[in-house]
Amino acid sequence: MTTFDDPATLTPAAARKLFRDGAAHPTTGWATGFTQTNLIAVPADWAYDVLLFCQRNPRPCPVLDVSDPGDPTTILAAGADLRCDLPRYRVWENGKLAGEATDVTGRWRTDMVAFSIGCSFTFETALVAAGIPLRHVDQGRNVAMYVTDRQCRPAGRLHGPMVVSMRQIPADRVADAVAISGAMPAVHGAPVHIGDPGELGIKDLDAPDFGDSVDAESGDVPMFWACGVTPQAALMASAPPFAITHAPGYMFVSDKRDSEYRVG
Amino acid sequence: MTTFDDPATLTPAAARKLFRDGAAHPTTGWATGFTQTNLIAVPADWAYDVLLFCQRNPRPCPVLDVSDPGDPTTILAAGADLRCDLPRYRVWENGKLAGEATDVTGRWRTDMVAFSIGCSFTFETALVAAGIPLRHVDQGRNVAMYVTDRQCRPAGRLHGPMVVSMRQIPADRVADAVAISGAMPAVHGAPVHIGDPGELGIKDLDAPDFGDSVDAESGDVPMFWACGVTPQAALMASAPPFAITHAPGYMFVSDKRDSEYRVG
Repeated sequence: MTTFDDPATLTPAAARKLFRDGAAHPTTGWATGFTQTNLIAVPADWAYDVLLFCQRNPRPCPVLDVSDPGDPTTILAAGADLRCDLPRYRVWENGKLAGEATDVTGRWRTDMVAFSIGCSFTFETALVAAGIPLRHVDQGRNVAMYVTDRQCRPAGRLHGPMVVSMRQIPADRVADAVAISGAMPAVHGAPVHIGDPGELGIKDLDAPDFGDSVDAESGDVPMFWACGVTPQAALMASAPPFAITHAPGYMFVSDKRDSEYRVG
Repeated sequence: MTTFDDPATLTPAAARKLFRDGAAHPTTGWATGFTQTNLIAVPADWAYDVLLFCQRNPRPCPVLDVSDPGDPTTILAAGADLRCDLPRYRVWENGKLAGEATDVTGRWRTDMVAFSIGCSFTFETALVAAGIPLRHVDQGRNVAMYVTDRQCRPAGRLHGPMVVSMRQIPADRVADAVAISGAMPAVHGAPVHIGDPGELGIKDLDAPDFGDSVDAESGDVPMFWACGVTPQAALMASAPPFAITHAPGYMFVSDKRDSEYRVG
């Protein structure tokens, strides 16, 4: 087992090194202040569908970088390798989860195009800086994510429902959380819904589709943000022959500072 | 000659109807408060290059909508036809301007993909509302646009320089103009440069590459914003076999309100 200091104080490069060496941890709270991203990589003949799907659904799928075919690097982090620097990956075949791995170098086709998509962990830093508690971090859990009954706008062969992440926020801080996240449209922006999970077709907050369930405290209000796992739901619904993604909550830690994605 | 009321007070649909009937006016100041867009349409086999070029160069090329191949409609305006509802078009063959027209229905291939790209006219409304004068509007001219020596990040077969629009702004309102436009990243956002045209490789402000030259008043400072004509410069540099664009300053008038593109 690799040992390391408080993950919040790691540099992005040090975090990536740990993951490259095989450590597999959810990254919420890691390398505080640096932007984390969702990964979806597809063969080149599916790249237009993915890029158009993201353009048409910018709240769940804000694109921060797109690689050239076969190139596992990204402008978001010098020296990084998207094939092994994430803590955990998912491999998809015909829309079905074919397996998880901590390194997908051997599965990376020569025509793979990698999309780095903004992550709500980015505005979490700003929420914490404003004194807004994050229950899942305090409870040492992955954030809770849910498939909703809202359909994304389709693009070519890709379609599917929107996925959301949920945070329980004290009622008197809900407005602040809206304002803070709303100023960061490149990483999902303002919530898509506040309050009633049923309005999004979510039946049971204690049974998330991805991540962990999180305990609310008295007076908390559930807030729902569009989530970068949405492309994975589109893979399940649309069944392209092959794709590689991050495992939900196990993100790429980039060298970009969260503050670069704040508007105004 | 079609007659009409003050163009500022026209509805977007009424403006589009005038243009569909053949009126050919620059649209600055038209249908105040409604978003205008740049058009670039290419055959489907070039669509990924254009979309990726836009993703990699979001300041000059913020994408507001992408059509399906052959579909001349847009979610930005119900009932609109992108082949005839703009006041003036440019037709491009092998990177060369092959002609201008007020209707390109006859040239619209069955696989054309239309990109609607944000326009700085959108934040002009907000500048005027804040009491910031717009010299080109007051002087009855098209905005001045210049090809810079800054290269965009290439994408596939597309490359080319960034084009900017320039506005002469009173020195004591420069900070306000930065803040106001900076809150609208979907329509070019904050300026890319303020002050010295030479820093962008612009030799003579009185000789714009597109649009009209505009007279400065004493104490004005030139401010430069990334411009949606940038894709046209990429067409010239990269020479795809065929493309259709708007003529610079002759924009599509959508039904979206400018305020929809303001963050926070």
